[in-house]
Amino acid sequence: MHRVSVLSFLLMTELDQWQSVAAIVFGDGSESRLYPLTKRRSEGAIPIASNYRLIDAVVSNCINSNINKIYAMTQFNSTSLNSHLSRAYSGAGLGKEGFVEVIAAYQSPEDQGWFKGTADAIRRCLWVLEEYPVVEFLILPGHHLYKMDYQKLIESHRNRKSDITIVASNGIAVRDEDPGFGVLKINAENQVMEYSMKSDREPHNYVVSPLTRLSDSSYRCIPSMGIYLINRATMVNLLNKHFPKANYFGTEVIRGALSLGMKVDAYLFEGYWEDMKSIEAFYQANMKCIKNSNLGYNFCDRDSPVYTMPRYLPPTIVNDAIITDSVIGDGCILNRCKIKGTVVGMRTKIGDGTIIEDSVIMGSDIEDDRESSIKSKSVPIGIGENTEIRKAIVDKNARIGKNVKIINKDNVEEGEREGSGYIISGRIMVVLRSAEIPDGSIL
Amino acid sequence: MHRVSVLSFLLMTELDQWQSVAAIVFGDGSESRLYPLTKRRSEGAIPIASNYRLIDAVVSNCINSNINKIYAMTQFNSTSLNSHLSRAYSGAGLGKEGFVEVIAAYQSPEDQGWFKGTADAIRRCLWVLEEYPVVEFLILPGHHLYKMDYQKLIESHRNRKSDITIVASNGIAVRDEDPGFGVLKINAENQVMEYSMKSDREPHNYVVSPLTRLSDSSYRCIPSMGIYLINRATMVNLLNKHFPKANYFGTEVIRGALSLGMKVDAYLFEGYWEDMKSIEAFYQANMKCIKNSNLGYNFCDRDSPVYTMPRYLPPTIVNDAIITDSVIGDGCILNRCKIKGTVVGMRTKIGDGTIIEDSVIMGSDIEDDRESSIKSKSVPIGIGENTEIRKAIVDKNARIGKNVKIINKDNVEEGEREGSGYIISGRIMVVLRSAEIPDGSIL
Amino acid sequence: MHRVSVLSFLLMTELDQWQSVAAIVFGDGSESRLYPLTKRRSEGAIPIASNYRLIDAVVSNCINSNINKIYAMTQFNSTSLNSHLSRAYSGAGLGKEGFVEVIAAYQSPEDQGWFKGTADAIRRCLWVLEEYPVVEFLILPGHHLYKMDYQKLIESHRNRKSDITIVASNGIAVRDEDPGFGVLKINAENQVMEYSMKSDREPHNYVVSPLTRLSDSSYRCIPSMGIYLINRATMVNLLNKHFPKANYFGTEVIRGALSLGMKVDAYLFEGYWEDMKSIEAFYQANMKCIKNSNLGYNFCDRDSPVYTMPRYLPPTIVNDAIITDSVIGDGCILNRCKIKGTVVGMRTKIGDGTIIEDSVIMGSDIEDDRESSIKSKSVPIGIGENTEIRKAIVDKNARIGKNVKIINKDNVEEGEREGSGYIISGRIMVVLRSAEIPDGSIL
Amino acid sequence: MHRVSVLSFLLMTELDQWQSVAAIVFGDGSESRLYPLTKRRSEGAIPIASNYRLIDAVVSNCINSNINKIYAMTQFNSTSLNSHLSRAYSGAGLGKEGFVEVIAAYQSPEDQGWFKGTADAIRRCLWVLEEYPVVEFLILPGHHLYKMDYQKLIESHRNRKSDITIVASNGIAVRDEDPGFGVLKINAENQVMEYSMKSDREPHNYVVSPLTRLSDSSYRCIPSMGIYLINRATMVNLLNKHFPKANYFGTEVIRGALSLGMKVDAYLFEGYWEDMKSIEAFYQANMKCIKNSNLGYNFCDRDSPVYTMPRYLPPTIVNDAIITDSVIGDGCILNRCKIKGTVVGMRTKIGDGTIIEDSVIMGSDIEDDRESSIKSKSVPIGIGENTEIRKAIVDKNARIGKNVKIINKDNVEEGEREGSGYIISGRIMVVLRSAEIPDGSIL
Repeated sequence: MHRVSVLSFLLMTELDQWQSVAAIVFGDGSESRLYPLTKRRSEGAIPIASNYRLIDAVVSNCINSNINKIYAMTQFNSTSLNSHLSRAYSGAGLGKEGFVEVIAAYQSPEDQGWFKGTADAIRRCLWVLEEYPVVEFLILPGHHLYKMDYQKLIESHRNRKSDITIVASNGIAVRDEDPGFGVLKINAENQVMEYSMKSDREPHNYVVSPLTRLSDSSYRCIPSMGIYLINRATMVNLLNKHFPKANYFGTEVIRGALSLGMKVDAYLFEGYWEDMKSIEAFYQANMKCIKNSNLGYNFCDRDSPVYTMPRYLPPTIVNDAIITDSVIGDGCILNRCKIKGTVVGMRTKIGDGTIIEDSVIMGSDIEDDRESSIKSKSVPIGIGENTEIRKAIVDKNARIGKNVKIINKDNVEEGEREGSGYIISGRIMVVLRSAEIPDGSIL
Repeated sequence: MHRVSVLSFLLMTELDQWQSVAAIVFGDGSESRLYPLTKRRSEGAIPIASNYRLIDAVVSNCINSNINKIYAMTQFNSTSLNSHLSRAYSGAGLGKEGFVEVIAAYQSPEDQGWFKGTADAIRRCLWVLEEYPVVEFLILPGHHLYKMDYQKLIESHRNRKSDITIVASNGIAVRDEDPGFGVLKINAENQVMEYSMKSDREPHNYVVSPLTRLSDSSYRCIPSMGIYLINRATMVNLLNKHFPKANYFGTEVIRGALSLGMKVDAYLFEGYWEDMKSIEAFYQANMKCIKNSNLGYNFCDRDSPVYTMPRYLPPTIVNDAIITDSVIGDGCILNRCKIKGTVVGMRTKIGDGTIIEDSVIMGSDIEDDRESSIKSKSVPIGIGENTEIRKAIVDKNARIGKNVKIINKDNVEEGEREGSGYIISGRIMVVLRSAEIPDGSIL
Repeated sequence: MHRVSVLSFLLMTELDQWQSVAAIVFGDGSESRLYPLTKRRSEGAIPIASNYRLIDAVVSNCINSNINKIYAMTQFNSTSLNSHLSRAYSGAGLGKEGFVEVIAAYQSPEDQGWFKGTADAIRRCLWVLEEYPVVEFLILPGHHLYKMDYQKLIESHRNRKSDITIVASNGIAVRDEDPGFGVLKINAENQVMEYSMKSDREPHNYVVSPLTRLSDSSYRCIPSMGIYLINRATMVNLLNKHFPKANYFGTEVIRGALSLGMKVDAYLFEGYWEDMKSIEAFYQANMKCIKNSNLGYNFCDRDSPVYTMPRYLPPTIVNDAIITDSVIGDGCILNRCKIKGTVVGMRTKIGDGTIIEDSVIMGSDIEDDRESSIKSKSVPIGIGENTEIRKAIVDKNARIGKNVKIINKDNVEEGEREGSGYIISGRIMVVLRSAEIPDGSIL
Repeated sequence: MHRVSVLSFLLMTELDQWQSVAAIVFGDGSESRLYPLTKRRSEGAIPIASNYRLIDAVVSNCINSNINKIYAMTQFNSTSLNSHLSRAYSGAGLGKEGFVEVIAAYQSPEDQGWFKGTADAIRRCLWVLEEYPVVEFLILPGHHLYKMDYQKLIESHRNRKSDITIVASNGIAVRDEDPGFGVLKINAENQVMEYSMKSDREPHNYVVSPLTRLSDSSYRCIPSMGIYLINRATMVNLLNKHFPKANYFGTEVIRGALSLGMKVDAYLFEGYWEDMKSIEAFYQANMKCIKNSNLGYNFCDRDSPVYTMPRYLPPTIVNDAIITDSVIGDGCILNRCKIKGTVVGMRTKIGDGTIIEDSVIMGSDIEDDRESSIKSKSVPIGIGENTEIRKAIVDKNARIGKNVKIINKDNVEEGEREGSGYIISGRIMVVLRSAEIPDGSIL
């Protein structure tokens, strides 16, 4: 405590500087990896862990790191993401001058096209992003699941006087990353020497040894997490002056910065990180969040809470259920059923005699439509009586009848049956949003 | 549909008139009936059905009846009620000019005392209540559980050109009412002839036959629900001119109005209504809301939703539980336990091997304090391992240890053990707010 | 009053039906008509009358008509419009289930292109628009200035059992409309017989006589205001089944509906209506709102208030000013100046000795940057000392120096001088957003 | 910048500790000093500088000092203060866990009385105040006008390891303070040796020399500002253990702490500070805020903005006015009038030919009632034609007719004319809230 007094002026200055980082979150991700969950929404808007959307993880990281100026850039299937962001983060929780501002792709007299990539999107929106006198920009993919205190990244960046700092995953091996990210070759001081893209076709011509430190004179390769902290003036110069045609931040702007001799450093991150590169990865991330352990992403951490849209749901009513290793959202009605290893989303109705195991049930956006369904003779939203669901993802508002079995009965690896309301991916059954699975179906 | 066209002007006028009713909600109720639940809060602030406070029922009735000017008058243990109302109903949900405004008892140059009763409270706040040009005031006790469309009451009042309309319960017999309410003697047109107070000492000298209609020439008696609709000018005149010393609305102002020959009518209400006259009644109201039936108060009705404070809680984690006929709030952690016939409130933690039956667990206001509890060697908030709870109400933030039995082992009818953290009322065990029940206790 | 009692059930039903209209507001308008005011924003986002944005007029009409489900569709220069809408209308003021939801143009697996027109935009967003069980959709251009009670339109539509009702302006002659609107040929019952587009090239081959009613057997022509009320099922069928390729609502869908024999009716509107077809029209609309009369649009009407973003600005400080026929926004600092016939927008700073007449000063989005401007030797935001401005529109954040004259000194009719920070349109000087006009300039 | 890296851990810890100060604001002040402005409201709720309430100054200090847990304790005429606080500060602007919570005086089973003083109020609410694990409490009078960065006070407190730190005004001489505050005798290290109350009757028996520092060995006296920072445990012990009967914080608890040998330090504050000890002082504070200088309280400071209730008012319309050295609020209508040296509050209407000088016009809470006033033949809210007002305070919603002169025609020093709608205090005319001054009156 004693040492603090010497530092009071410094401390106050630092505080203000921290508030002068703005985050730029890309809400879209890839359109194809998580199809059909992305049929009507962008990756960031996919529901996860009953109560959340994927993008809540990154926005909550920002809030918990005292970064409260957040721009979310969207263009692919952006409607539900925009709606979620503006309802969840308007006003409350972001302090005096905070906001989450959605910047949707738009046409202007100067440019009639869509955003051509991350760099193009930022360049075209610089006039918005420059409104506040922030010192650095933090560029974030919006569809990753991890907890990070960005302030430590910012400190590292400022202490090392970096032009750009890239977050790299020290905990995992280089693997089939999202094509937007790359591989960093770093020296012993974690300075980035080279930025390369992993190509699926050619064999890796670099040494992958993320978990062992090399000797001082040598280098190692490590996967980028696609998170960049960059000085404001550096960014403006790179985008407008040096590389006015660059569309992608990683492959073009970062590489360009290296070619200009800028100081690009890596910041190593060791914790859980999941970028949802497939339906399988998304499914596993949900399964991990069920366990009340520290292996996966912790949605219930008191010190770094996850924020989302506030809701006014009634409590869940359980009539007679045996529930094991599961997560139950708000507003459900669970009748005489058995639920095991399952994420049960908001407003899920489950009928008598139904068994659900190892599944992700996303629940429903809308209140009970049972009466109107009966009138129209359609299957009501929810899961009917005496139904069995195993290793499945059931998207929002699906209508699953009675005596249905969703069990991948033929043990199919991959299957495209959109016409029937589902697909199979990595042996996981995925029932589409608003799909109707009639009574007695056996899938 | 055809007839509508003729009425369009009338319709618009009506719409505006409806918006010109303001509600005055009394948040306090009796201080003693529900003790110790009212030790630190007023009746209106008592948690019910996991996610709600008692007053949410009446405020939601107002919102669902398009009454959006709501004054809540409080003075007894008002802190948690004021806090709940201003967080739950600020801004959202109340439309263009709507508000829930808390009017706490206050001192002024003219009057240094507390509100002496409902009539005194309204009189002293008339200068606030008269801010908007409303046509009628709707006076509501804030601690009752029922659903009513007040617009039908307003229509009846206007059609009958009543000075005052009193809501009376047609569905239940006259019984041990709250002393603030009374008994109405009404004629065949439901006009109120007499307003009397039931005295516990003397036998009832009136005929109680609420469920059968009498012949046109005769009268019957019916219990008042303490809900009054009164014309603005009538109210101002009664309070300031005719009865400037009256403290209570029912016994003094209503009786006074009758003595002046005013037209006082009864509006008969047939549905579920509970005024929580005892711990037993509160307990039963909770037990009824568990059943997914139409017998009790329906917290999950799509057409008349119950509003409350929005929350950002994580979903409930169930590790291995058998749950029967229960309601589960948000943010709980339920380990290997058996729960039956129980309301499990927000953020309840239940340990391995624990059995809970026929109980109301109110949950916790605060996040997990497990770590700091271990440090300080106190019992953490929640319910420990291998504990058994039957027919109990466990108030918020209680700390119940391991191997505890809360079972009313001596089958006591009434017991005052506040020093040990609980009381017994009607054989129901009531554990106090923030009480600590040490490991191994058998109560 | 007596007749009301008979109608109570009907009344309640009607109330609910009214809440079941959703509005679809198009925020964009034409990109070229109001250039350069639309250089960085869509028409709907243009500031007007100091405190407002153009789209506030239409959104406020909705709120004042008890329509609280509002979808705003945007794609052209949409950033500032999206930001305004989500900050101004989030949460408050829209009642229980109300919202203003921005739907920005987006790419999806099925369609990678921009919205091709109003019909295309609605078709692609039908899956969103169908979320609530609304009965009719109200389609609204977002950049018009007028006050209308849409409930009267809805009543007319329902009474006449129309498939589509088009609002037509009864008060003004057919004139150079926005190409998106058309001309209606209506019969004596106001049923639409023909929908045609006015072409600038060929002479009008229809009789224009909006202000006189013809005999029963004859027809007359009247300008459409581009406002359509359409039954939900009708809209879905027209867009998906009958005309799945139609891009524009007026020219293609309405004409198509007529060709199918649908009942299309006109609803005649008589009040002030301005569609801002040019810089001149925008300028005149501002000039009219200055007059405290009923000629123009009334921003201060108690019965139909105009909503907008809430702000926390300090009051305006006037050091020594003579102000005539002007409107002054919040947070201005007016030194020793003369202001006449001028709209002075929020946070405008005006220097000593400056004279402003017949102008629209849009003010500033940002707080005083005077100190940082002095450091960087740039002209500060606002209007400097001894400057003279006549018949000009000064866009937001402009920096006008000392001893400047913006007076159209050469009396130019039209001039394109964007490089110098302004253009001239209809003899009106328009200074661009964030433009810098150096000390001593004479324009 | 280099030194920061060493300190990163310390820095983060500090940040969290800063967030662990809760403010306790007393909203009431004295009931008599500012009468009649306090006839219907507490001191904290008095309107100032057109757009604000007095308490906004202190609450804004908290927000600007990153203190976001604010308890406001009220009991005297608290209605308008409670309403203002819950509307102005609900939700927005206070960050993740922030709130302004009104704690109105209340009755409980343990204590049926009003708060007997500051110490009694805090003691009775300790159970609420202890909800969050804050480290220190900051006790603040809510009716003072000053800007202070409380973080510097907190640093000083922590660095000196004080038990209690009292803010003392270094800039002004000891004068007729509010009786609740006192005079501190401090040594050369600014440690408090003695706390005494100034008595008006007996001559000061201490040396008053605030502006000169004494030699090390001597003492000086300096006025307390009634602001206390106190460690949590210290406060609980003082109130519950050592002085359980103490009612007042200054005279009883602080003196008690000194008697126990606790370390009580003074923190010297040099800036503008005004405690509104009289109508005259309130008037002067308003007059100073008009000047765009640094002498008074700056409502327009970009770096420490003053927060208040957001409003949706239209801009002010000026038809033909000469305005000098004045502040103009939102939503006014100023006709052909002359305004000089005056604060013109929100929604003020001023008629043709009217002259206002050196006055504070508080404006109106409600929209124009001109039409209904004409019907009822009462004077409408606002100021009529050809009226003259000099050196007056006109409270909210006053109705001042035509051809009125409010000029203190008999040059009265003090006058009580409440029956006629005004009083005179220090030659300042004070027109009461909602008072009606008929046409032609000359006061």
